Amino acid sequence: MNERKGSPLDLLEALEETGVHPSEEERLLLGTDGSVTFLLEVLTGEPVAVETLEQRVVRADLQQAALLDVNEGDEVNLRRVLLVGDRPLVYAESLTPLSRLEPSFHDELMRQDKPIGRIMAEQEIEARRDLQELGVARDGRGCEALDREELFFREYDVIRNGEVLMHIREEFPSGLFD
Amino acid sequence: MNERKGSPLDLLEALEETGVHPSEEERLLLGTDGSVTFLLEVLTGEPVAVETLEQRVVRADLQQAALLDVNEGDEVNLRRVLLVGDRPLVYAESLTPLSRLEPSFHDELMRQDKPIGRIMAEQEIEARRDLQELGVARDGRGCEALDREELFFREYDVIRNGEVLMHIREEFPSGLFD
Repeated sequence: MNERKGSPLDLLEALEETGVHPSEEERLLLGTDGSVTFLLEVLTGEPVAVETLEQRVVRADLQQAALLDVNEGDEVNLRRVLLVGDRPLVYAESLTPLSRLEPSFHDELMRQDKPIGRIMAEQEIEARRDLQELGVARDGRGCEALDREELFFREYDVIRNGEVLMHIREEFPSGLFD
Repeated sequence: MNERKGSPLDLLEALEETGVHPSEEERLLLGTDGSVTFLLEVLTGEPVAVETLEQRVVRADLQQAALLDVNEGDEVNLRRVLLVGDRPLVYAESLTPLSRLEPSFHDELMRQDKPIGRIMAEQEIEARRDLQELGVARDGRGCEALDREELFFREYDVIRNGEVLMHIREEFPSGLFD
């Protein structure tokens, strides 16, 4: 049985040991196993919308195939968005193997206007979020989108039927809720 | 497709309209679709443990059978606990039809020392939390356990394979994080 090694709290503790001290809100966003959209909406008091920067189907390269446990060359939906409330809040990119998406989920994802957490709730998706990594990024793609030199980031898998339904990376600036 | 009616934010808004104004932390606890244990651990900075008040197998009465969508008389595990950090934080009671529990989950639940959110993470349970109701309770069983006259409460289902794996009610005092 898994012990708590690698739990969100352990990952947060490891981050603190590097001298980085996220606020309470930042710790919640970094470690949550629930919907980030919901957290943002409660923390800002505003509805959160999606601004899509890029969405296209790509062929999985070697690294993406390993992340998703698919074959190199398999079709993968790549989506890069900003989650926007009263201002841009979070940069998020997701990789989703097309073969694991049922048509109704696929259609919602392609509409480009809904956060993934909201799609999952509406589509009644049963899954778990498996946090892989969190920390501070100085060269993430979100730095340009959010016009910052460094950002907090986290990466996690949405697991369904024992398979990676999505691999998600989220990046957000420090001090968002100060 | 479901619209957002009945979403956590709608339920929180309905609560505000009754003149009750939970703090940011309380809104997060009331509305989260993730683990309450994780939220408590981040908000208090302390590990959260379970203190079991009662655990036994009961035969579902009419109301329990309706909540869980089982037959009257089916075996149901009833668990009443306090989630305790630096102090008692949350009173929680859960109803779990025994027929829907695999042996490993059953064993962990019977050990009585782990919060359900942690068991679900360790057992890699894929599910969704479906929030049913939230508000203020003046006669909940948690009032006695937490020695308060009124508490916030929420009720939700943990849904797996389209069935209710658990029905959970959580109660906690206002001002926990002031």
